[in-house]
Amino acid sequence: MSKKLAAEFFGTFWLVFGGCGSAVLAAGFPQLGIAFAGVALAFGLTVLTMAYAVGGISGGHFNPAVSLGLAIGGRFPFSQLIPYWIVQVLGGIAAAAILYTIATAKPDFVVGGFASNGYGELSPGHYGLPAAFLIEVTLTAGFIVVILGATARTAPSGFGPLAIGLALTLIHLISIPVTNTSVNPARSTAAALFAQTAALGQLWLFWVAPLIGAVVGAAIWKLLLEKDGA
Amino acid sequence: MSKKLAAEFFGTFWLVFGGCGSAVLAAGFPQLGIAFAGVALAFGLTVLTMAYAVGGISGGHFNPAVSLGLAIGGRFPFSQLIPYWIVQVLGGIAAAAILYTIATAKPDFVVGGFASNGYGELSPGHYGLPAAFLIEVTLTAGFIVVILGATARTAPSGFGPLAIGLALTLIHLISIPVTNTSVNPARSTAAALFAQTAALGQLWLFWVAPLIGAVVGAAIWKLLLEKDGA
Amino acid sequence: MSKKLAAEFFGTFWLVFGGCGSAVLAAGFPQLGIAFAGVALAFGLTVLTMAYAVGGISGGHFNPAVSLGLAIGGRFPFSQLIPYWIVQVLGGIAAAAILYTIATAKPDFVVGGFASNGYGELSPGHYGLPAAFLIEVTLTAGFIVVILGATARTAPSGFGPLAIGLALTLIHLISIPVTNTSVNPARSTAAALFAQTAALGQLWLFWVAPLIGAVVGAAIWKLLLEKDGA
Amino acid sequence: MSKKLAAEFFGTFWLVFGGCGSAVLAAGFPQLGIAFAGVALAFGLTVLTMAYAVGGISGGHFNPAVSLGLAIGGRFPFSQLIPYWIVQVLGGIAAAAILYTIATAKPDFVVGGFASNGYGELSPGHYGLPAAFLIEVTLTAGFIVVILGATARTAPSGFGPLAIGLALTLIHLISIPVTNTSVNPARSTAAALFAQTAALGQLWLFWVAPLIGAVVGAAIWKLLLEKDGA
Repeated sequence: MSKKLAAEFFGTFWLVFGGCGSAVLAAGFPQLGIAFAGVALAFGLTVLTMAYAVGGISGGHFNPAVSLGLAIGGRFPFSQLIPYWIVQVLGGIAAAAILYTIATAKPDFVVGGFASNGYGELSPGHYGLPAAFLIEVTLTAGFIVVILGATARTAPSGFGPLAIGLALTLIHLISIPVTNTSVNPARSTAAALFAQTAALGQLWLFWVAPLIGAVVGAAIWKLLLEKDGA
Repeated sequence: MSKKLAAEFFGTFWLVFGGCGSAVLAAGFPQLGIAFAGVALAFGLTVLTMAYAVGGISGGHFNPAVSLGLAIGGRFPFSQLIPYWIVQVLGGIAAAAILYTIATAKPDFVVGGFASNGYGELSPGHYGLPAAFLIEVTLTAGFIVVILGATARTAPSGFGPLAIGLALTLIHLISIPVTNTSVNPARSTAAALFAQTAALGQLWLFWVAPLIGAVVGAAIWKLLLEKDGA
Repeated sequence: MSKKLAAEFFGTFWLVFGGCGSAVLAAGFPQLGIAFAGVALAFGLTVLTMAYAVGGISGGHFNPAVSLGLAIGGRFPFSQLIPYWIVQVLGGIAAAAILYTIATAKPDFVVGGFASNGYGELSPGHYGLPAAFLIEVTLTAGFIVVILGATARTAPSGFGPLAIGLALTLIHLISIPVTNTSVNPARSTAAALFAQTAALGQLWLFWVAPLIGAVVGAAIWKLLLEKDGA
Repeated sequence: MSKKLAAEFFGTFWLVFGGCGSAVLAAGFPQLGIAFAGVALAFGLTVLTMAYAVGGISGGHFNPAVSLGLAIGGRFPFSQLIPYWIVQVLGGIAAAAILYTIATAKPDFVVGGFASNGYGELSPGHYGLPAAFLIEVTLTAGFIVVILGATARTAPSGFGPLAIGLALTLIHLISIPVTNTSVNPARSTAAALFAQTAALGQLWLFWVAPLIGAVVGAAIWKLLLEKDGA
């Protein structure tokens, strides 16, 4: 069990360091920055790469909502849910701490939102709470369907991490302007702890909405199946 | 059968929500928007991800022109064509409705074309009807060749969704300036219903051209085969 | 044999229509254009998608230099080289003709180079003939090594089109500023015929350099092998 | 053995020619340049493509830190480490020499940093030595985990080069602003030799940090394993 937790810790570290790191360090670099599309690619590639690397050890969730969706879908024991959640959050925080150290070494760096998620004034496009809630639920649900489907016994073997990682890229291509894209409470928690905005006060939404989305996604997947769990 | 229809409904939902969503919400975000290339990637990734997830259930068409091309190619029963078309259109409309709700929550949002397809005044580059028709037929035909070829028994197993999804990205990289890229009547219908332009009056073209393209593509594929259907 | 030629015709059509089409129609679209990176992606995806689709029929060359490299590498009979070259060029020209029809339908379109290759005044960055020759030879050689290597019996099965297509993307990411990137005489010929510049007068280089590069690449690959051809 | 060395020479040539080439020639092209995201994609695709091509011959390291990490991880004999390092550096230098010849053929070209790595004044974002050290160690460690994990016996077969190449893309999406991204001492050495800045004086860091990162990464991977080396 401890090997699995170590893999989830390190995988979520990689997700936050890579995804939030690309956003904080590279997105808005003058003239040559990677913009939202580059950040979307980075988030997806953290999951694609680490799921190929350690998916065989821990399942490669790196995300409390994913662990919940897999548990509901019958792929992961509910008894391991809380330990997974804890190490995912801790891995994310460790990554954000290192990222904070690097980013603030730049003399003119302004911490600001530090790639945290938000609605209203803290949404990149100033979308309110209802829109933020709706898009996080919808996208997390779709994410869980992709995860359950692409790793089902009926899906081509070996392509799961590719499909799942690129689904996360897709999700960011859509929703960075709305919430800065969470679908992952561990990632949201890690960034909010270092933000110099009111992001922590909005963090509840980025636990509630992705977890509801995970329930919805697992329910949709069960609808799509005739008789078995995969 | 109903499981297949549910999978097509949800898959087309994902295609429209992801593809049109990235265009409506993220393409033109000031300074950091994803531009046409990001939209092209998003459309392709909707198909790549959902085809890995539910392709084993419904075939993963998410597009009336694809269903027609597969039927002509002998891979899909003509008797299921109309039911598939209906749920594809309904799934697309459901996605556009949720997207509309989210997008219009932004105070300064202008609905405009809402990622709908068009020619003449409604073409991003103001291309006329003949050019729009020609490029939609050509690209849908190529798309069908890729679909029939990459899922043939002679093709490497498991790579179909990768090739097909990235073909849709390619198609968008070429033709967003001309028609905003359809090759998919369900996607065009969903967006046109919410557009605050004359898009509905041009919708016929984005049924006619992709369906003709599907016939052409299936015919080209048959030309490329010596004796069997795959 | 005629099925193979038809597959090469159509595959090269797709390469030129997609690659040059993205360059001509979408690269410089105001504000939202796909820029060089989008064109690079488009060229690569034409090969990735069509090699998965028709690679099992014709080998999926779509490029006279590739056919030569495969012949030297012992993977393709020299007797079929000229027929392949002819249909590759014809397929490319057919694509350029349709693209020309579409592009010129836009009232304010300026044909200009029409995505043709060039050096000196016709190089995007005004690189001279020696630099153009050197980069085309180098990149074609590398391309042939990737093709021979990724389709060798020792390489993972099924990944060839992925590696080869993305190699073409890589090649464009490097060299569009120098020659607008050829490494493919059929693509160069097709574009030059429609360019309203002196591109035809420079076309010889984009036959000579890629073919020399193919010879160099096949020689490098042979160096890398101990005893057999794959 | 000499075949392996030839493969590493040529593979590292491709990495430096493609990665640094895209940065030097295409990143900042006016209006249409590929920016940091394009450079990130190029670096990753050099490894993805060449690892599919020659990975079966030499293992496809193309990077002294990778060779070290694989040796510590028990996948590569320590006895071959120095020969690998030598040809990797030589292959990189050969690529940089050809790239220098091409780039300087442009009359108005300014050599400058020539895509070399640096900290302080030589960092694109003027990050100091501690931040540069920290990010290079962190990212190299993650890279080694991906490499050891994605090529382990428990990982899906054949996807290693995909995951590893895209991990390098991810790494560049994060860290180009900080150090211009090394994680590869051969790449850093090759570029520094041609830079017309003080890059050579900082080169030690881009040996020390990636090699330490490789040790850290191999240690993390061992932590993640219960009893065997793969």
